Amino acid sequence: MYPVITISRQFGSGGHSIGEAVAKQLNIPFYDGVIVERVAEECGYAKELIEEQGEATSSANKIFDISAASSMYFQSPQDEIFLAQRKVILEAAKKGPCVIVGRCSDYILRNAEIPCLNVLIHADMEHRIRRVLERYGDIKNVDVKKRISKKDKQRRTYYRYYTDQHWGEYSNYDIALDSGNLGEECCVHVICELAEKMNNEG
Amino acid sequence: MYPVITISRQFGSGGHSIGEAVAKQLNIPFYDGVIVERVAEECGYAKELIEEQGEATSSANKIFDISAASSMYFQSPQDEIFLAQRKVILEAAKKGPCVIVGRCSDYILRNAEIPCLNVLIHADMEHRIRRVLERYGDIKNVDVKKRISKKDKQRRTYYRYYTDQHWGEYSNYDIALDSGNLGEECCVHVICELAEKMNNEG
Repeated sequence: MYPVITISRQFGSGGHSIGEAVAKQLNIPFYDGVIVERVAEECGYAKELIEEQGEATSSANKIFDISAASSMYFQSPQDEIFLAQRKVILEAAKKGPCVIVGRCSDYILRNAEIPCLNVLIHADMEHRIRRVLERYGDIKNVDVKKRISKKDKQRRTYYRYYTDQHWGEYSNYDIALDSGNLGEECCVHVICELAEKMNNEG
Repeated sequence: MYPVITISRQFGSGGHSIGEAVAKQLNIPFYDGVIVERVAEECGYAKELIEEQGEATSSANKIFDISAASSMYFQSPQDEIFLAQRKVILEAAKKGPCVIVGRCSDYILRNAEIPCLNVLIHADMEHRIRRVLERYGDIKNVDVKKRISKKDKQRRTYYRYYTDQHWGEYSNYDIALDSGNLGEECCVHVICELAEKMNNEG
């Protein structure tokens, strides 16, 4: 069986497209932030969780198995959304192989006893600026750089808050790829190769 | 043409064996610390460098293109050995595709305008302890763990001193692989695949 493939990525590195292409090639479901959020809303998970919290805020750490640091502040609407999304990610992964982009999915699945392939996609600033310009059109370079740095910061902070770990630590990933130097197509190829290998061995 | 493949690795991660296997599979030369050191000695590079330094210590930074931080202290026998080894690495890489393990080779070749594939091999402590025990026989676990941590520290310090950068930053590598989770054979396969791809495209 293919593993569940989680993809963490720097903004502008093409990690989202790479994830989509991998899912297509392996013919398995694809989940990104937008999809996870929509499913969580459709299932009314956020609402459900708010009610649960009303009864048992203090034991949230045990129920949801999130880091002690974040559970201490376990009360904002953002936390509720995170936990709703966490539920969607765990359910998706339990259903079978899929690709999940972002949303701390590597961390969320770490103890789920589901075979995972945790991937990090990164690229240098030059490649990322070029990619963002190609994708979002003709914005001045300085704005793009700022936007990339801001997005990086947001992701680092989000990851740090909910996992109590630093984003981008190589030890958290089975494979980290430089999409700028290697190219997106090459990254897709390598990830699919690994998934095929795990499929044949599992 | 295949790229020059540099391999940085944690002690006990199997990076050395992986590098050897890659070189064998691609049928290209293999250089590790021992080989680089021997060649440097045979060529009398260390001696030659000491003489050069005697004449031009202050311009060492320009001549050798090493980081400003390390060039400030450019006088120990260790520095001479590093520079001799650096020369061997640059010459080896200029000759053609090869695999070079350790010795800051990724950093040394960064401006050499030679196609490189920079690889990082890492694994969690449990896998590394198991591997070191298999390789070096029956030592008590506590000693192995200490030995691994000490070796890690030495490599980090060496890298930091000569490159002025942190060891293990994902942005310094085209690909980083967890040999503990993926297995050595799988790492060899992925690296060879990438080299073949670069060979076909270049």
